[in-house]
Amino acid sequence: MSWPAQVTGQRVSAELYVEVQQFYARQMPLLEERRLEEFLETFTEDGSIEHRPGGWRIEGREQLLAEMRQRRGDPDQPLVEEVSAREAREKNIAYYDGLVYRYWFDRMRVEPLGEGALRVRYQAIVSMTDFAGKVSFEPTTVVEDVLVGVEGELYTRSRLVTHDSPNWADKIHNPS
Amino acid sequence: MSWPAQVTGQRVSAELYVEVQQFYARQMPLLEERRLEEFLETFTEDGSIEHRPGGWRIEGREQLLAEMRQRRGDPDQPLVEEVSAREAREKNIAYYDGLVYRYWFDRMRVEPLGEGALRVRYQAIVSMTDFAGKVSFEPTTVVEDVLVGVEGELYTRSRLVTHDSPNWADKIHNPS
Amino acid sequence: MSWPAQVTGQRVSAELYVEVQQFYARQMPLLEERRLEEFLETFTEDGSIEHRPGGWRIEGREQLLAEMRQRRGDPDQPLVEEVSAREAREKNIAYYDGLVYRYWFDRMRVEPLGEGALRVRYQAIVSMTDFAGKVSFEPTTVVEDVLVGVEGELYTRSRLVTHDSPNWADKIHNPS
Repeated sequence: MSWPAQVTGQRVSAELYVEVQQFYARQMPLLEERRLEEFLETFTEDGSIEHRPGGWRIEGREQLLAEMRQRRGDPDQPLVEEVSAREAREKNIAYYDGLVYRYWFDRMRVEPLGEGALRVRYQAIVSMTDFAGKVSFEPTTVVEDVLVGVEGELYTRSRLVTHDSPNWADKIHNPS
Repeated sequence: MSWPAQVTGQRVSAELYVEVQQFYARQMPLLEERRLEEFLETFTEDGSIEHRPGGWRIEGREQLLAEMRQRRGDPDQPLVEEVSAREAREKNIAYYDGLVYRYWFDRMRVEPLGEGALRVRYQAIVSMTDFAGKVSFEPTTVVEDVLVGVEGELYTRSRLVTHDSPNWADKIHNPS
Repeated sequence: MSWPAQVTGQRVSAELYVEVQQFYARQMPLLEERRLEEFLETFTEDGSIEHRPGGWRIEGREQLLAEMRQRRGDPDQPLVEEVSAREAREKNIAYYDGLVYRYWFDRMRVEPLGEGALRVRYQAIVSMTDFAGKVSFEPTTVVEDVLVGVEGELYTRSRLVTHDSPNWADKIHNPS
């Protein structure tokens, strides 16, 4: 794979664009399946995830793992009570218990940043399917990732999630 | 088209990845438009569709056509009564009468299986728009297809749909 | 960029397909962010947008700008009253006040038309996230664009939006 050589121009090659697509197609199902250690191995050691506005920023695989272990829940557990993202963090509630969540990305823009790094901008929405089959959606977001190539593999160095609702963190995410 | 030669490595080429995208962009609108014979011509003669968990597996173009003719309905008919997928099969109800359904795919992962075959894994959600414009969604799924190339064209040999809700088949799919 | 040379065959190259993806990834966020002049600069001077069935066709950047300025609204304004698309046009109501709307495309089919033009067919759904985080969806559509290349850049010459609900224009688009 020669992708670091391909990012010298202003437009990325089709090969690199497709590799980025396939990277996310490997990465995100790991999060959806709660394979948290494997998911975080697709981040750099100092990788970070930040939520705006009024959210939080967590840096480092260990710190991200600690946060995710407490929040990501289990689809086979009973459905989580009605709770907001902020309340779930404060009260240590497994936010996604009883839910299968899936991320839907669109409008992916891939731009070279130089030195083998890429900026990837996309919009995202999370669907939640509960045990009975009810489907609901979290508010939409715009995400900006920085990806880096290390020994021929892509890794996420940072993920900045900007929520389209300023009240996203206080919204009940699974209203009945 | 030289795609069978391209599937020898572990990663697919951009050309093949794009060809797979375009394959689905041709295939799925045929199902949405109820052009069932043409849709099934994008499957191999022995092509199969299976739904899990607790679902059914149908093999062969003729068998699939018989099933689809009875279930796929007509958007210009009155809206189907409230019904589940299982009940629609048992009572022979045209499940999608009065509805325009669209499939939304994401997170497509394309992997060579050797001998010109590909495994394509993606997540899918079905939207339903009724006559009045009301939009609803079926529970999310993960799909695994095997595609094969025959004389330069791709065909679906098998489609395995794993539903994210264990109760998907008993859910009312068009709740008012 | 050599894309006009690439459209001579019946199938588009991966490079061109990816360029089309990146074109929409630049174009549509401009509309979502209400950067209307910049959005319309991605259309040709005589570019047109048409809505079917029972809708309207507007041609020319100036005419499109006048229409959009009155309809596209401001996410930081109070939420628009319950209104249909047709009523919003008749009463000059800012249809999207208080809403962040995002377009979701899928099933993109890219075909060369000759002379450097492309036909792009896709399905689209619009999500709306309000201030409180409530998410709703407009009825689904199928879109057919004609893109042209001018001095190495793609532009939309025409956009034909066919709505899946015949009553789309009279539907309340932000029901409470």
